[in-house]
Amino acid sequence: MPSTTMPMLRTYPKPMNLDRAKLAAAIDALNDCAQACTACADACLSEDVVAELTKCVRTNLDCADICATTARVLSRHTGYDANISRSLLEACATACKSCGDECVRHADQHEHCRICAEACRACEQVCRDLLATIS
Amino acid sequence: MPSTTMPMLRTYPKPMNLDRAKLAAAIDALNDCAQACTACADACLSEDVVAELTKCVRTNLDCADICATTARVLSRHTGYDANISRSLLEACATACKSCGDECVRHADQHEHCRICAEACRACEQVCRDLLATIS
Amino acid sequence: MPSTTMPMLRTYPKPMNLDRAKLAAAIDALNDCAQACTACADACLSEDVVAELTKCVRTNLDCADICATTARVLSRHTGYDANISRSLLEACATACKSCGDECVRHADQHEHCRICAEACRACEQVCRDLLATIS
Amino acid sequence: MPSTTMPMLRTYPKPMNLDRAKLAAAIDALNDCAQACTACADACLSEDVVAELTKCVRTNLDCADICATTARVLSRHTGYDANISRSLLEACATACKSCGDECVRHADQHEHCRICAEACRACEQVCRDLLATIS
Repeated sequence: MPSTTMPMLRTYPKPMNLDRAKLAAAIDALNDCAQACTACADACLSEDVVAELTKCVRTNLDCADICATTARVLSRHTGYDANISRSLLEACATACKSCGDECVRHADQHEHCRICAEACRACEQVCRDLLATIS
Repeated sequence: MPSTTMPMLRTYPKPMNLDRAKLAAAIDALNDCAQACTACADACLSEDVVAELTKCVRTNLDCADICATTARVLSRHTGYDANISRSLLEACATACKSCGDECVRHADQHEHCRICAEACRACEQVCRDLLATIS
Repeated sequence: MPSTTMPMLRTYPKPMNLDRAKLAAAIDALNDCAQACTACADACLSEDVVAELTKCVRTNLDCADICATTARVLSRHTGYDANISRSLLEACATACKSCGDECVRHADQHEHCRICAEACRACEQVCRDLLATIS
Repeated sequence: MPSTTMPMLRTYPKPMNLDRAKLAAAIDALNDCAQACTACADACLSEDVVAELTKCVRTNLDCADICATTARVLSRHTGYDANISRSLLEACATACKSCGDECVRHADQHEHCRICAEACRACEQVCRDLLATIS
């Protein structure tokens, strides 16, 4: 099932301050990273070695919340405010960096951490790419 | 970019109470519907006839929140509790039905309502399909 | 600092389908329970015996998400739809019951679980009280 | 009903990187602002002059999402990461500033905007106060 992000962006009835293709890619990466982090937190909780993974659970929960909120803010264009988008994208790139760094430490032992680290790296990159287009 | 939902579900380290393919389809449909509803609410706000679309905005916001929360709950399998999944899926199907019904009323005038109505119908169906598998 | 929930409800510019005092009490209890559950999940993660508390963390996360979403839906009155409120309140009471039951099992060992169980019981009760007023 | 934020913080079982009283005040202000913004967005939607309030609705929705996420992140102390807290508090103060500025423009006409503007100002201040304590 293809994402409806881009089809929905195309129907927005007014001019938009950001490039719609870049924006759709960012929103999809944010939603995907939020989903990976929510699943990784739960998979860590179910590992026998959960006591070694508590920082990973915590960073996953933060990253999931921040990515989900950033996707929502970027999906709104009515009364656009560049300051909010910019500062939130910076916070989101920071969270993705931290979560990717933490997950990658467990990537050899836990496949969910390996996949989640990749989603965090991809999301961090699209946040920085989009940030570069916001003046 | 393919969704990481199914790859992440495959890595869950313990037995799971639901069929992983059905579950991944449900989570993807829920996230897609949440995204469509968030975007539709904002597109409605930017229409010149926004005063005729306030119920649509409201139902979109409810449906987005409920779908996002349902996707999160279904992504957790540690200490699974069928009662929570079942009652939340019922609430989510109800919200998708209401939002789909409202969006479809504006589908001829507003393409974003037409696409969003389809996402709501698809999501309502996967919620009901998954519900049928929870004993 | 007193909550702004009731002052805000008083300013809603149209007739409302629910009793404003009961509604404000419910929204405050929901937000309080969401906060308690988020904090309890994190406190459990920091306990040395985290491996015995994984079901508690999971149920806390579910309950926090569902209570927060229910508070949002109950805070919206434009284009009110009784079906959504009713089914979501039922799901929320179910989640509060499950989370309260789980937390109370650890209440003797962990004060955060004791306080969180109380917040869940109080929230379950206000959900059921409000449900009884929705026809 | 007093908030359980401070009682829960007191039960956190490990050392904490932030002052617990300042932190509880911040979390309570964030949750209160999120609630005010959710209610203000809906009250704006129900005003006959909704077409003049669409930017206010949008900024309310952003501010509600960002405040709620910031409250969650600040409620977690396991594996604390100062970079995430700092960047998110900066984004949150920015959102509160924008939302307060927008709400105050309608404060004379709409009491909900006046109360919401106050909640945004208070929340912006606690975010900046807490930021000043994070090295």
